[in-house]
Amino acid sequence: MIVALKPGVEKEKQEGLVSWLKSLGLDIHVSAGQYQTILGLIGDTSKIDTELIESLDIVDSVKRVSETFKCVNRKFHPDDTVIDVNGVKIGGGNFCMIAGPCSVENPDQIVEVARAVKSAGANLLRGGAFKPRTSPYDFQGLGKEGIELLKIARKETGLPIVTEIMSVSDLPLFEDVDVLQVGARNMQNFDLLRELGSFGKPVLLKRGLANTLKELLMSAEYIMASGNDNVILCERGIRTYSDYLRNTLDLAAVPMLKELSHLPVIVDPSHATGIARMVPPMALAAVAAGADGLIIEVHNDPIHALCDGAQSLKPDEYAVLSKKIEAVREAIK
Amino acid sequence: MIVALKPGVEKEKQEGLVSWLKSLGLDIHVSAGQYQTILGLIGDTSKIDTELIESLDIVDSVKRVSETFKCVNRKFHPDDTVIDVNGVKIGGGNFCMIAGPCSVENPDQIVEVARAVKSAGANLLRGGAFKPRTSPYDFQGLGKEGIELLKIARKETGLPIVTEIMSVSDLPLFEDVDVLQVGARNMQNFDLLRELGSFGKPVLLKRGLANTLKELLMSAEYIMASGNDNVILCERGIRTYSDYLRNTLDLAAVPMLKELSHLPVIVDPSHATGIARMVPPMALAAVAAGADGLIIEVHNDPIHALCDGAQSLKPDEYAVLSKKIEAVREAIK
Amino acid sequence: MIVALKPGVEKEKQEGLVSWLKSLGLDIHVSAGQYQTILGLIGDTSKIDTELIESLDIVDSVKRVSETFKCVNRKFHPDDTVIDVNGVKIGGGNFCMIAGPCSVENPDQIVEVARAVKSAGANLLRGGAFKPRTSPYDFQGLGKEGIELLKIARKETGLPIVTEIMSVSDLPLFEDVDVLQVGARNMQNFDLLRELGSFGKPVLLKRGLANTLKELLMSAEYIMASGNDNVILCERGIRTYSDYLRNTLDLAAVPMLKELSHLPVIVDPSHATGIARMVPPMALAAVAAGADGLIIEVHNDPIHALCDGAQSLKPDEYAVLSKKIEAVREAIK
Amino acid sequence: MIVALKPGVEKEKQEGLVSWLKSLGLDIHVSAGQYQTILGLIGDTSKIDTELIESLDIVDSVKRVSETFKCVNRKFHPDDTVIDVNGVKIGGGNFCMIAGPCSVENPDQIVEVARAVKSAGANLLRGGAFKPRTSPYDFQGLGKEGIELLKIARKETGLPIVTEIMSVSDLPLFEDVDVLQVGARNMQNFDLLRELGSFGKPVLLKRGLANTLKELLMSAEYIMASGNDNVILCERGIRTYSDYLRNTLDLAAVPMLKELSHLPVIVDPSHATGIARMVPPMALAAVAAGADGLIIEVHNDPIHALCDGAQSLKPDEYAVLSKKIEAVREAIK
Repeated sequence: MIVALKPGVEKEKQEGLVSWLKSLGLDIHVSAGQYQTILGLIGDTSKIDTELIESLDIVDSVKRVSETFKCVNRKFHPDDTVIDVNGVKIGGGNFCMIAGPCSVENPDQIVEVARAVKSAGANLLRGGAFKPRTSPYDFQGLGKEGIELLKIARKETGLPIVTEIMSVSDLPLFEDVDVLQVGARNMQNFDLLRELGSFGKPVLLKRGLANTLKELLMSAEYIMASGNDNVILCERGIRTYSDYLRNTLDLAAVPMLKELSHLPVIVDPSHATGIARMVPPMALAAVAAGADGLIIEVHNDPIHALCDGAQSLKPDEYAVLSKKIEAVREAIK
Repeated sequence: MIVALKPGVEKEKQEGLVSWLKSLGLDIHVSAGQYQTILGLIGDTSKIDTELIESLDIVDSVKRVSETFKCVNRKFHPDDTVIDVNGVKIGGGNFCMIAGPCSVENPDQIVEVARAVKSAGANLLRGGAFKPRTSPYDFQGLGKEGIELLKIARKETGLPIVTEIMSVSDLPLFEDVDVLQVGARNMQNFDLLRELGSFGKPVLLKRGLANTLKELLMSAEYIMASGNDNVILCERGIRTYSDYLRNTLDLAAVPMLKELSHLPVIVDPSHATGIARMVPPMALAAVAAGADGLIIEVHNDPIHALCDGAQSLKPDEYAVLSKKIEAVREAIK
Repeated sequence: MIVALKPGVEKEKQEGLVSWLKSLGLDIHVSAGQYQTILGLIGDTSKIDTELIESLDIVDSVKRVSETFKCVNRKFHPDDTVIDVNGVKIGGGNFCMIAGPCSVENPDQIVEVARAVKSAGANLLRGGAFKPRTSPYDFQGLGKEGIELLKIARKETGLPIVTEIMSVSDLPLFEDVDVLQVGARNMQNFDLLRELGSFGKPVLLKRGLANTLKELLMSAEYIMASGNDNVILCERGIRTYSDYLRNTLDLAAVPMLKELSHLPVIVDPSHATGIARMVPPMALAAVAAGADGLIIEVHNDPIHALCDGAQSLKPDEYAVLSKKIEAVREAIK
Repeated sequence: MIVALKPGVEKEKQEGLVSWLKSLGLDIHVSAGQYQTILGLIGDTSKIDTELIESLDIVDSVKRVSETFKCVNRKFHPDDTVIDVNGVKIGGGNFCMIAGPCSVENPDQIVEVARAVKSAGANLLRGGAFKPRTSPYDFQGLGKEGIELLKIARKETGLPIVTEIMSVSDLPLFEDVDVLQVGARNMQNFDLLRELGSFGKPVLLKRGLANTLKELLMSAEYIMASGNDNVILCERGIRTYSDYLRNTLDLAAVPMLKELSHLPVIVDPSHATGIARMVPPMALAAVAAGADGLIIEVHNDPIHALCDGAQSLKPDEYAVLSKKIEAVREAIK
């Protein structure tokens, strides 16, 4: 960490700061320049509060020179992490195609969609059982029953299942779920992250509504620091002043996250845009940007879907898209 | 709800849409204009998915004309809600002064700060026991012990206590807490909101990092719809591209929230700016904007505070501010 | 335009509003619902101030049902516009590859880069002569001399030239420039837009730092309404709270703009990311999203470039990228 | 400037970088730490491109330790600047009250409003002659005639006049205007800023739609570096995802700008909120935050105003507000 002092600081005050920093267990390297003095802090600075130091009246600015994330950091783990979900590999060149309805509605629906997406190229099935909704009056999902229906669909098709967990108290219901999704609104629900760390099953961690890449990585760090290495990062659009689209899909996050971290990075073009006809171009763009997979909403009857029908593809549209995805993957090799 | 169709829609398609909408239990008022036809949907449209309808190829745009929030809505509850916290009233002209350290650290610290803020004008004590931190490696608060220390400070000073709850599973520890705070990162932790609804104690609900006013009100609606009318809204700065300040304090939210809702609205200038010397001007601005109270970080020894020292006032600075707050309240009467 | 009145409005006030609206030359269709009354405004509402009406105390909300942009609107011009720049076609399936240095520096540099990008697949040459810089102390471009050097490079290679215009008073210097670029900071410099409308040469209009798609289209409308149909829209990243990248490239803007308008839409991945190694993945993503072209910074000696070297590709990197662009274009056909 | 190298950089590459930096005229102070090496760059680093250096593969991060703004910097000019506009002082404890209609419409209107605002406490008159409008089809202002009408109102009331300049070519029309306003959309129209620097008359510089404080200060620097010290900064709301208000008024910018710079800082609550009834609370909040003045839209007949009527106060509302402003100014002394 580097602390730049203001020009013309009194020697006494400077020495007070240095001795206080030393009392925190750090070595201090003082570099007196022509205009200002710079302190280099050597040792474990991870617990130093940069904002506190920055607020001191003799300090001009503070800069960390090392990242605070460790487990997720590619510097300490240069090879891509490959996650194995019941035989389906994600990351390290293995592209995953997660598809399914926003909400699980009934056995016929989920089995029918599962078969359709499988034959169209999906290798994991998604479906919402617990639904986070802005309004308490909106459909909140089938809950426990929804998870049971997903298991039926898995049995029928062999596709591993991905579904969202909203609360630590629901964890026992997820014992037999293959991938637990943490939604955007829970990205910084730190208790949930820690519990998922000890739960051990693969986690699909969505970027929060307005979170930075560093915050996303720090949330993944919570899971990994609690003992679970199987984390999949997911870009799903961030909130801006966009007028015609629900969110702004930040596709540059894909190559940047892959540079910073060894974890697989997938993209959700359905929630990012909120409009079914925008899903195919953004899905292809995500592939071209180097994503490790896609999570896409597919519904056999979008017009009657209980939620988010506006952004769902029909199975045949997904099949067409699936072939183009294959072609783009080939093109960028 | 109003649905504007695209110009030149085929009659057949239009009739299909109308009959489908009727099947959802709505009355439809068709108004054929020169250029385009407009459908007025009458009845309970609260469960209609506007985005789904908007995505139909014959639809140009959809607009809700009634808000989806009910309990929090001033239209249905014109008088200001006044919340009674062990004799301290909040809202309806009663100004609350919540103050205390970011984190509870030890008995001496919390009792000393509690006494200092009380004599400086505070009527509630805040202090963090469970701390949401971006990094798993940062200080996470004293937890249960922190709550016990707050109770000691309450006993010594008579100040009701306010502290943050992060997880439903911690609720039993909050039985004897006066006001439960929901932090920005948990504003859309819907399970927690629902539980706080049935828990019944006053809730201080902070606006999320990048949430709209409507979303804040819908989260308050979760609590109220679960049976708890004692909700205090709190503006604490939103995330933008600001360069010199941590967040952007959205003070216009104060008069707007008070127009939309009958709930008390307070402001947190400490987290909004992250810089102690910016707290007094923003606190005074909040008062002038019509806020019902302030929650401010005060620490007896900011330089050694375990977290967020950079934004804490010293007790004597808080006392000076307190007098100016009084003066501004008088001025805007 | 639709005006929803508040519930329980007095008849007298409603009639006052209706008669005032009629005095503005509109027909009013009154639709009295169970809870609220809705006014449909028929006629030329383009000059009605929606915000004024929305602010009236008897009005609940106002909604325009028709766009205010005309010339740029695909509804009135279903076919893609194809712009011919000295034989190079842009739009309607014709992909343009604009490349060159951020700044024109000297004859050798610009001719060398022009030759390199041409042989690597570019069909237009870009180069900054007038440079908008945040600081008055930064290099401001060679100005008039820069334009002369671009003409030399054009003569040597045959590539039409694209360069930025910052001020109406510089227009005479652009008589022999092929495409005039309007930078992000000037997207709403309306005087400049109007002048470019009558100047008549093709305009490359970049989206502003934080402008919506509608605002971008309205700025294009300024140019077209002044008589110039040759407008190319350009997405170049918008300002958000992004931490590791300069801007957030909003690629979903590409298919959305192409749906709303018939104008060609290109992407600038260099300014969007600010980092050379992020340019190839974002360029490919833009192609996959359906862009009509790319504008990319290429420099023969990025380390010594007078500005923005950090985001420039070397010619050989551009050549590699060029082949992949070809492959992705093939894949999405 | 401080350059932190990546851990384990080869000595040869490090020496290459150091010698290149030296060739730019800088002294380099090398500080080899346990984990990484840090270079301190001493000398005139104002022309160094930090992004270029940051993009080098051996560099971890770069940090400027001195601001790039000079003339506007309070460090080099500790006393408040006081601007004298025909006897009306602004800054340094002198509060300015600028008021008037969004647009100048006709002689009666502007003279009537001028008299009304003067008697209600205003000491400068504002009025739009040249209007920047998103749409080419909206009212664009009376132009030259509008300026003549403002002069008539000045003659009648003695109030100095403030009006917006949109284009360098209009400058001759502003010879007899007292304060030239640069609107948000032109904050980075650098040619205009430079011309206003040599024009010499006081400039009211509004913060751009999504510009940082540093960018605002750099734009003021353009004017000052061209020889004009009379710059008034104006916060008028920034663009966010706000739902019920047009912009987000960033009042913390007021104390922060006044800390960074010696220039007066005023606030425009009318454009920030876009809603007349939100103007008084935000005006009072601005005063409490320490603003040096307010620019407020006042119209004698808001319902018929040609533009922005929704945000205009009536003269009697302004008079009431004016008294409260006085009271709040007294309260915070």
